[in-house]
Amino acid sequence: MSLTVVGSVAFDALETPFGKRDKILGGAATHFSLSAGYFTDVNAVGVVGNDFGEDEWAVFERHNINTDDIQVVEDGETFFWSGRYEYDMNVAHTLDTQLNVFETFDPQLSENSKNTRLLFLANIVPMLQKGVREQSNAEFVAMDTMNFWIDSMKDAVIDTMKVVDCIIINDAEARQLADEPNIHKAARKLMETGGLKAVVIKQGEYGAALFTENSFFALPAYPLESVFDPTGAGDTFAGGFMGYLASHDKIDEDTMRRAMVYGTVMSSFNVEEFGTERVDRLTHEEINQRFSDFKRFTHFEEILFERATSA
Amino acid sequence: MSLTVVGSVAFDALETPFGKRDKILGGAATHFSLSAGYFTDVNAVGVVGNDFGEDEWAVFERHNINTDDIQVVEDGETFFWSGRYEYDMNVAHTLDTQLNVFETFDPQLSENSKNTRLLFLANIVPMLQKGVREQSNAEFVAMDTMNFWIDSMKDAVIDTMKVVDCIIINDAEARQLADEPNIHKAARKLMETGGLKAVVIKQGEYGAALFTENSFFALPAYPLESVFDPTGAGDTFAGGFMGYLASHDKIDEDTMRRAMVYGTVMSSFNVEEFGTERVDRLTHEEINQRFSDFKRFTHFEEILFERATSA
Repeated sequence: MSLTVVGSVAFDALETPFGKRDKILGGAATHFSLSAGYFTDVNAVGVVGNDFGEDEWAVFERHNINTDDIQVVEDGETFFWSGRYEYDMNVAHTLDTQLNVFETFDPQLSENSKNTRLLFLANIVPMLQKGVREQSNAEFVAMDTMNFWIDSMKDAVIDTMKVVDCIIINDAEARQLADEPNIHKAARKLMETGGLKAVVIKQGEYGAALFTENSFFALPAYPLESVFDPTGAGDTFAGGFMGYLASHDKIDEDTMRRAMVYGTVMSSFNVEEFGTERVDRLTHEEINQRFSDFKRFTHFEEILFERATSA
Repeated sequence: MSLTVVGSVAFDALETPFGKRDKILGGAATHFSLSAGYFTDVNAVGVVGNDFGEDEWAVFERHNINTDDIQVVEDGETFFWSGRYEYDMNVAHTLDTQLNVFETFDPQLSENSKNTRLLFLANIVPMLQKGVREQSNAEFVAMDTMNFWIDSMKDAVIDTMKVVDCIIINDAEARQLADEPNIHKAARKLMETGGLKAVVIKQGEYGAALFTENSFFALPAYPLESVFDPTGAGDTFAGGFMGYLASHDKIDEDTMRRAMVYGTVMSSFNVEEFGTERVDRLTHEEINQRFSDFKRFTHFEEILFERATSA
């Protein structure tokens, strides 16, 4: 077991311009696990209610995700989120949020989950993230967060950032957390404040960027002509990124760059159908095909200009 | 002579959070020419008033720009634009626009300007762009446009698009012109409608993308920690792109990709100081250094994932 994720397991109700689903499997830990499961063995830590049924468990089983640390609250209901996307998909309108059993979620890591080499703290209350980090013996820990926590408890987010190695957030969150509109300055400031090894900035349709101590790497998004449902894209990205890292003995710059590509590839599949539908039935061939596509999309020869005639 | 540009030559008054300038050299044809001048010989076609002085002409002369086709209206004043940028620099607030001699601009190409291999139609009234294209014998013609023309005379913009080879516009303009929110669909639609060989989408701080018949290429922006003045960045990009192409006998996919990198490099210098100040005093070494930087920023090894253990 090499990767543990702690986060929400949920039911989602979604409306996009292309259709709707009333109650499908969702949640950050779900999207992350399914994605990471293509690269490594994953332990999911979360909580669900008694409405979490055989079909839902079967998705985790199919991908060999260890669910021993998903608590089941027998008299409770699973976290429920309902949202609607506009035609341009950049903004989700939350229609309903029912925290249910997630409201009192107190993540406890089994010995197994404590001892994975990598740990991902999906978007939950920053104090809980910190508590989980303290339970874990992981060598490399990454966290997500969201505008809600940055607005209401920025100091706690920063406290947690100080005990992890990597933060994986979107560009608006990075600007807000660093209080700095320039994304490069924001990333450097977060790296310094948090003592981080890496800052990963997700830029949605514009791709993603990786900041490490001495380097900058950026990648466009996969050129999709239709985005069906962006829910879970960020967690699917993080799953591909962390899952790929977990499958390697050494987390160096080159490995992180390829992890960025695999993260981007996984999120590109996620948005092609509702919820987990597309990622649930991927093949390694499909995944590697898109990895190779990215080489084509970004390649240019390093031939420097020399002016032939005198200026 | 291998490249002609038609567009505005202007005075700008600028306010950014980092300072202000009351009356500096600006205009699309100016920014384009200075940038392209690092790669090829350039003819600028435009119009100025009698307030256009020695200092302004000297900038063109320093870069060996042919200004024979810049008309001087003896009793007129040069186009003047005044704008203010917010802290995040993504939106320019126009404070004042005085078209002056530009209002009746009727571009006439000399034999010399008619016979350059490449032509760039900077952002002017689409009917004038079309008229210039019809005067020219260029093999490869690119155009820019803006939201104002797309709002008020979209059909004319499309008519012009049909007689050029390439369109270089920002992402909001591409979406608006194609009436399609997905940028990949929008680019394909423009390519088809216009019978274009290439669509270049400028994405500001997120970089730029190139669509050709069978290919997609994308590049991040240069990672700048301070953007001083974004005025002219798009024209400086186009100047680097077209100037690099003009310096090559063959305009193929590989050449266009390197042209995208040089365009991005040139625009990254442009925004570092006010107006033309930075691009006015570049060296080829500085330009090539950033080209090489881009190779580092975007490079990853194509090593495909193979799962070692059974899933």
